[in-house]
Order: sequence, then C-alpha cells, then structure tokens
Amino acid sequence: MAKDMTLLWGTGSPPCWRVMIALEEKNLQGYDHKLLSFEKMEHKSQQVLDINPRGQLPTFKHGDNVINESYAACFYLESQFKSQGTKLIPDGPAEQALMYQRMFEGLTFYEKLNAVIYYEWYVPEGERHESALKRNKEALVTELKLWEGYLQKLGSGSYLAGPSFTLADVVVFPTVGTVFRFGLSPERYPKLGEYYNLLKERPSVKASWPPHWLENPKGQDTLKDI
Amino acid sequence: MAKDMTLLWGTGSPPCWRVMIALEEKNLQGYDHKLLSFEKMEHKSQQVLDINPRGQLPTFKHGDNVINESYAACFYLESQFKSQGTKLIPDGPAEQALMYQRMFEGLTFYEKLNAVIYYEWYVPEGERHESALKRNKEALVTELKLWEGYLQKLGSGSYLAGPSFTLADVVVFPTVGTVFRFGLSPERYPKLGEYYNLLKERPSVKASWPPHWLENPKGQDTLKDI
Repeated sequence: MAKDMTLLWGTGSPPCWRVMIALEEKNLQGYDHKLLSFEKMEHKSQQVLDINPRGQLPTFKHGDNVINESYAACFYLESQFKSQGTKLIPDGPAEQALMYQRMFEGLTFYEKLNAVIYYEWYVPEGERHESALKRNKEALVTELKLWEGYLQKLGSGSYLAGPSFTLADVVVFPTVGTVFRFGLSPERYPKLGEYYNLLKERPSVKASWPPHWLENPKGQDTLKDI
Repeated sequence: MAKDMTLLWGTGSPPCWRVMIALEEKNLQGYDHKLLSFEKMEHKSQQVLDINPRGQLPTFKHGDNVINESYAACFYLESQFKSQGTKLIPDGPAEQALMYQRMFEGLTFYEKLNAVIYYEWYVPEGERHESALKRNKEALVTELKLWEGYLQKLGSGSYLAGPSFTLADVVVFPTVGTVFRFGLSPERYPKLGEYYNLLKERPSVKASWPPHWLENPKGQDTLKDI
C-alpha cells in the first residue's frame, strides 16, 4: 500500500521518529525503509546523498517527490492522505491555531534539548565552556516548565492541542520521549510524565519506538537533576 | 476587514516579515499593529509577555487565537482564509512536496545566517572563538550554494517551489532579503540575486519592507566577502 515510499532513518532520532509516527497514523505501513547508523556515518553515505544533499536522516521519498525535512514530510503526508487514517489537522480555528503554535514551539523545545544532551557532540573540544552548558541547561528548564504549564492548563488526558491527537503530537512527542530517555524526573514534571505515559501506549508510537531503546531499556541520566 | 487581528512586530526581523507578507497576500490589510523596538527591549515588555510568554516578536492574535510562531501564523492564515487573496499552498503533489521541503530547509538557512551576522549577539564575550565563527561562515556558504543550486535548477523567473508564489516564498524571502541587506554579492550568487530582484517588486513584499531599511538604504557589509 505504501510501496512507492522509501524512508532512510536512524534509531532514536526525533526527526525520523516524527515521520514514522505520521506514516503509522495515516495507515501507510509497508513502506520501504532502511535503518542506517549515525555512528558509522551512514547518514553521509552516497545512498543518502543521492536523495538528500544535506546528508541527514530522515531521507524520505514518495514516488518522485523528495521530502526530507521531518515537519515537511508530516505536512505532506497529512495533505496527500487527508481522508486516510487519523485526521491530523483539526477543523476548528482555535484548535488549529493551538496546533500550529505548539508544532513550531516544538522546534525550540527540540533545539534546547539538543543543546544540553549533545553539547559535546555539537561543540568542538577547545570551544566548550561550563558557562555555556549551564546557560543551555537553564534554558531547557525554562522550556520544560513552559510545556508543563501548557499541559497543566489543558487538563488531564489532553493532547498538545486539545482533545484530539494532531500533528503537534506527531512532531513533539519524540522530543518528550527523548527527555525521559535521558532521565528527566516525572515527579518534577508530572504533566509531561502523564503525557508521556498516555502517548507511549498509542499504537503508532509503539510501532515506531526506537529499536535500540527496546534493546537497552535503560537510558542515560543526563537530565535527572534538572 | 482584519480588525480582529493584532500584530506586535520589530523592523528587520525575518519572522515578523514572514507574517506581514502572509497578511498582505491574504488581503488582510488593516490589522492592528504596533512596531516595537528590540534595542529598547520592548519585546520583553508586559504587553508582549501577556500574549507571548517567550517575549518574542512577532506576537500575533486573531480574535482569541494566539499564534506567535511565524511559520504557525502563516499556515494558520492560509488555512483560515483559503479562498481569499493568493492561494499559498499549491494543489499538485510535486509542487506541494517541494514547497514543504523548501519551507523547512528555510529554517536552517535562517539559522545559519544568524550564526554569522549575529554571532556576537548570541555568544557572550568570553565564549567567542574565531574557529567557531569561521566554521559558521563556511556553513553559511554551503547553505547559500545549496539555494543557488535550487534556483538554478528551477530556471529563471521561478519561485522557490516552482511557477507559483507559495508559502515557501513567504517564509524564505525575508532571509534572502537579509543576506543582501548584509552585503552578499549578487555577482557571486546570481540566482539568489535574481530571485531577490523578482520578489522585492512584489506588492506584498514592498508593502511590508522593513521601515528602517527604507530610512537607511545602505545596509551592512558583513557578508560581502563570502
């Protein structure tokens, strides 16, 4: 059914996970896919570069259409398969406004997370500063508190843009999954913890759960004290 | 006609400019707006914080709906005023795929630009490194060459996603405007220069041109040698 789609992906990459959740929600199982290794630098392999000049994962193709950016692929899939699977963009203007707003705040959330957990990966050795990492951690705490507040306001059992699961959940959940994988305390961030527990049981999320997280259920503790 | 809309904005800010172009294209002139000063830190004023906890511009409200993220506001406006003004999302799957892809690559373009022209603003004095700024400049050159190649492939007079002006142009043009404002050489990047010349005459772009650029037509020369 989704035989004319190809996804090259890496395990544990939130951008890849977004696209995989979207594909599941739109009932597009059965697409061609290949798991590549970031450690082995396979995201810079010719196979990727032929489709994606940026050498990044996800790399995604539907027929002749190349849509490598994860948000772009999610929008595209919802638009092309509107009446198939879960409807991911709500009709009501208020819910739609909130969905778009949270989707794009989600990019900031993801960026602030990366600036902490991958600090040493992004910043070469001679350029690292304790002061910068401390500031990045404070910015992440501010960010986490914003999201905790958003969920608090919406009430128990809510999705990010209200009562329905939307594109906002598709793109932001992988970041939430990652903060807990890196040891965030659900006691300190109970609403985020509740949201995580709600979503992790969703079939699309379970079906796309990062395989190396399944193999090694214990994650890192990088965020345990923040 | 757009009396139930309020925009708080800053001159020369690409995110603000995106929303202003979208409003023009959707024939939503006449909205309430207020020009605030980044220098005077008015983006952190109570007026902004009441609507936007991030204290950023643009800050945008339509009725009770708050959509501060610039991409979110552009998507929202197109969705809510679909049949009004310019149709900003094309129907064809191939053009749509390209539009989404370029829109989100546009965020990387914007980020790589900021990492050069605002390096000193983003990085505190004791944490600056010549090696980092040099790397940022190289990354910007790589990025500019990608976009130059995209435009080259599409041929003269094309918009970013093909023959029609789309959301990709709405969100990426302000970045292109900024690279030339900061002295990029149109001789070295002729396709980007051609695209800039095409778009700068468009009514929506002219109507929203940053007022301080009009007051001081001469920009910086930060990018003249890259």
